[in-house]
Amino acid sequence: MASIRSSDGYRVGVAGHMTPDEFRRYGREVVDWIADYYERLESLPVLAQVKPGDVRAGLPGSAPEQGEPFDAVLRDLDDLLLPGVTHWQHPSFFGYFPANASGPAILGDLLASGLGVQGMLWATSPAATELETHVLDWLAELLGLPQRFRSTGDGGGVIQHSASDSALVALLAALHRVSDARTTRDGVGVERFGVYTSGQSHSSVEKACRIAGLGGAALRKLDVDPATQSARPEHLRELLERDRAEGVVPAMVVASVGATGTGAVDPVADLAALARDYGAWLHVDAAWAGVAAVAPEFRWLDDGLELADSYCTNPHKWLLTNFDCDAFWVADRRPLIGALSVLPEYLRNAASESGAVIDYRDWHVPLGRRFRALKLWAVIRWYGAEGLRAHVRSSVALAQRFAAQVADDDRFEVVTPHPLALVTFRLRAGSDATRELMERVNASGRMFLTHTVVNGETALRLAVGSPLTEQRHIDAASAELARAASDVLAS
Amino acid sequence: MASIRSSDGYRVGVAGHMTPDEFRRYGREVVDWIADYYERLESLPVLAQVKPGDVRAGLPGSAPEQGEPFDAVLRDLDDLLLPGVTHWQHPSFFGYFPANASGPAILGDLLASGLGVQGMLWATSPAATELETHVLDWLAELLGLPQRFRSTGDGGGVIQHSASDSALVALLAALHRVSDARTTRDGVGVERFGVYTSGQSHSSVEKACRIAGLGGAALRKLDVDPATQSARPEHLRELLERDRAEGVVPAMVVASVGATGTGAVDPVADLAALARDYGAWLHVDAAWAGVAAVAPEFRWLDDGLELADSYCTNPHKWLLTNFDCDAFWVADRRPLIGALSVLPEYLRNAASESGAVIDYRDWHVPLGRRFRALKLWAVIRWYGAEGLRAHVRSSVALAQRFAAQVADDDRFEVVTPHPLALVTFRLRAGSDATRELMERVNASGRMFLTHTVVNGETALRLAVGSPLTEQRHIDAASAELARAASDVLAS
Repeated sequence: MASIRSSDGYRVGVAGHMTPDEFRRYGREVVDWIADYYERLESLPVLAQVKPGDVRAGLPGSAPEQGEPFDAVLRDLDDLLLPGVTHWQHPSFFGYFPANASGPAILGDLLASGLGVQGMLWATSPAATELETHVLDWLAELLGLPQRFRSTGDGGGVIQHSASDSALVALLAALHRVSDARTTRDGVGVERFGVYTSGQSHSSVEKACRIAGLGGAALRKLDVDPATQSARPEHLRELLERDRAEGVVPAMVVASVGATGTGAVDPVADLAALARDYGAWLHVDAAWAGVAAVAPEFRWLDDGLELADSYCTNPHKWLLTNFDCDAFWVADRRPLIGALSVLPEYLRNAASESGAVIDYRDWHVPLGRRFRALKLWAVIRWYGAEGLRAHVRSSVALAQRFAAQVADDDRFEVVTPHPLALVTFRLRAGSDATRELMERVNASGRMFLTHTVVNGETALRLAVGSPLTEQRHIDAASAELARAASDVLAS
Repeated sequence: MASIRSSDGYRVGVAGHMTPDEFRRYGREVVDWIADYYERLESLPVLAQVKPGDVRAGLPGSAPEQGEPFDAVLRDLDDLLLPGVTHWQHPSFFGYFPANASGPAILGDLLASGLGVQGMLWATSPAATELETHVLDWLAELLGLPQRFRSTGDGGGVIQHSASDSALVALLAALHRVSDARTTRDGVGVERFGVYTSGQSHSSVEKACRIAGLGGAALRKLDVDPATQSARPEHLRELLERDRAEGVVPAMVVASVGATGTGAVDPVADLAALARDYGAWLHVDAAWAGVAAVAPEFRWLDDGLELADSYCTNPHKWLLTNFDCDAFWVADRRPLIGALSVLPEYLRNAASESGAVIDYRDWHVPLGRRFRALKLWAVIRWYGAEGLRAHVRSSVALAQRFAAQVADDDRFEVVTPHPLALVTFRLRAGSDATRELMERVNASGRMFLTHTVVNGETALRLAVGSPLTEQRHIDAASAELARAASDVLAS
C-alpha cells in the first residue's frame, strides 16, 4: 500500500509496493471474483475431488524471485486451488456445523484488514476494544443472556478465535479461582483436578485439559440419556462425590447446549447447581446452537445460564459472521484476567494502570489481535435483529422439512430429537449400510454431510445453516439419499 | 451473500441477505474507502486522541431491530470509530513492532473470507492445508532455514495466530517429548518442570508456562549481557545444573532472536547445545527479526537453528502480511501432534486414517481455521523474493539513519546494538526525562513510539517497518524528538 504519490507529488516508498490505485483496481477484481463465485457456487461439486498431494503437485517448488501481477494469483486460485476446495458456503453443504459467510461479514473483515490495527491493549487502538465490548453487550441482549454477562457489571464479553479457545480460557479461570491463584503462580501440580462433561461434548474440552496441564485423564465423561443424548445430572453427582472422597478438586463442569454429535442440550440448571455445590466453574458451550436464541421461541436455549460462570456461542457458525468469531462471556472477569495477565515493561501505559479500560490481551492466549468486532458489528447492523431471526428460523424450518421427509421413508429412522437445524438419522439396515450411504452421496458432489455415533451405531448428520439453502436443496438432498439408499440396499 | 437470483431467474433465499450485486457495489465502496484511507493516512494523528469510554458513548445502547444500509456502517466508521483508532499503518508509527499490512495481503485475506472454507482437517478443504504446507516450505527456503523444518522430512510448518501461540504449542510438544507422552495423558503434576529464557524475552513465555499448567514459577530468567542484552549461556548452564540437582526436569529453553525490548539476539547455538545436553526442547522466537533473513546479509539471524526443535517468525510483523500470520516450524512434528490430537467420531475420515495428510487442527489450540495461507501466498507472489528483500533493507537503512541522527545529538545516547530496524535510545538526563519526552511526542499526534527498560533505566524504542515510511518521516521524527528534548530539559 506504499509507493503512493505523497501530497507534494513525490514518488515514495520501495518499488514494488501496491499503490492505492493498483489496490482499487485489484480490489475490484477480487470483489467481482467473490460475487461471481457465489453466483456459480451451485454448479461446483460440494466436496473437493482431489487426492492427497494433488494440489501441491501443481505449485512451483520455490517462491518466485521476481514479483508477479495479482492476476496470476487469481488465475492460479481458479486453476490450481479451487479443485481442491470443499465449498462450505454451497447450499448443499450439510456437514459438520455450518460456517456461514455473509456479505456484510466479509466486508467488515476487509475493513479490519485494511485498517491493520492491533488491539492488544485499549491504548493500542481504543475503538477496537470499545466496539468489541459494546457489540458483545448488544449480542448478549439480542440473545437474552443474563445481565451478569454484560460489561456494565463484573462480567463482559470478548471475541475468541474458536470455542476451543473459550473452553481453554474458562478452564484457566476456573483453576485460578478454585486454587485462589495458586495454579497461576505455581502450576497445577500440587493437587489433582477434575473436569466433567458429557460424552457427547466437543473434543475441545479434552484438548483444554491437555493444554492446561491436567492431562486427558482429568476429564470425566458423563453418561447421557440414550433418547436425548443429554448429560445425566445424577451421574455428575456421583462423579463429584467420588472425586471429593478421593481428594480430587472439581475444577470445571462443561454443559453443552447443542452438542456437536447430535445437537443434544444438557440440563444446564441441574449441572450448574451441582457445580456450585462442589465449588466448580460452570462453562456452557453453545457454539452452534446458542445464536438461535436471537428468536424468542428458542430462548429456552438460555435456561440455567443465570448460574453459569462462562458461556460461548459462535456467530461464525450459524450467525452469518465469517470464521473466526466465537463470542465468549464471563460473569466475573477477575479470575480470567488473573490467570492470563502478564505485564512486561514494554506494554505498560497510563490507561491500563488507571484500571478504567479493558486490555483484551488478558482475556485469551495470543497477545496481538485484529480489529475483531468490525465484522460482527457489520453483520448485526446489516441484518438487524429481525434479519438474524429470519435466518435462524429459515434454517430450522428447512431442517424440520428434511426430518419429515426422512421419517416418511421406512428404510430410515430419525435418531434423536431435532428442535433446531440438525437432524441425525440412519438406515435401519445398520451402521455399515449407513456409512456406505454417506460415502456414495458425498462422492456424487451434489451434497455433503458427515456422521457421528449414537448409542454405538453410526448416524448421519444433516445440518442446515447456509443462507443459500432453499427448499429445493433440501428436497434434492432427500431424493439423493433415497436413491443412494436403494443402491446400497440392493448391493 | 444469499438471496441471489439462481440461473433460472428465481429469487431465492431469506429476504435481507446481501445479493452478489449488492456485494459488488458495497465491495467497491469498501475497497475505495481503504485506498482513500491510505492516501489520507499521513494527515491523521498517529495516536488516537480519545479518553476511555469516548467511543462507546457514541454508539447506540442496543442493536438495531431493523437492518441498516452498509453506507451507515461506513459513515459510523468515519465519524465514531476513526477518532478512536491508533493508526498502525501510519508512516510515523514507530511503536512496539510494526504490524504491516499490504495490498496483496489484504486481498489474499479477502479471498479467504469470501471462500469461507474451514481447514481444520485436510479433508475439509485440501487446498487450504496443502497451500499452507507448501508456502511454509517456500518461506523456509526464502529465509534459509535448515532443511529439517521442511515438510518433506519429519518437520513442517503451520500458520499460528501469534508467537504466543507458538511458544505455547512448543511447550506442549516439549512436555510431551520429555515425559514420553505422560503429561498429555496424566498432566504435568507428577514432576516439576523448568522453562528457561532471557529476561528480555517476550511475556508470551511466561504466559505459556501459566497456560500449560506449570505456573509462572516454572520460568527461570536468564541473566543478560548488559551491553548486548543477550542471554548468558553460562547462566543457563548454572540453572540447568541446579534444577537437575533438585529433581526439576528441564522442559524447554526459549532463545530470542530480536527480543521485544531491545531486539537482542541470543546466542542460539550455545543455548541449543545446552538444551540438548540436558534433554530440553529448544524453541527460537524470532517473531519480529526472523523475516529479515530473506536478505542474505541478515542470514546470521539463522545461526544455530540447525540445533533448534522449533522456530517462529511473524510475517504479520515485518513481512507485509496482515495480522494474523505467525509462521511456526518444528523439526519433528510427532510430539506436537501427540500433544494435541484428540479424535472424536465426527471428525474421523479416510484421508486422516491413511496417514498421508496433515490435519492442522492437531498443530494448534483451535479446531477450526480459515484458509490462512492465501494472504501469505499472495504477498510472496506479488513481491517476489526481490521485493521482500528490498522492503527489509529499506527499513534497516532508515533505522540506521535515525540511529546516526540520535547519536549526533549529545543529549541522547543510543542504548544497545541496532543491526536491524529497531533503535533504543534515551536522554542522558535520565528515566524521568526520557519518559516525559515520549509522552510529549506521542501526544503531538505527529509520531508514535514506545518504551522499555534496559539495565534498570527507561529507554525509548523506535521501530521502522511500515512500507509507507520514508527518509522524510525519519528526519521529521528526529527533529520532533530534538525539539521535545529541548522543552523537557528546559522545564
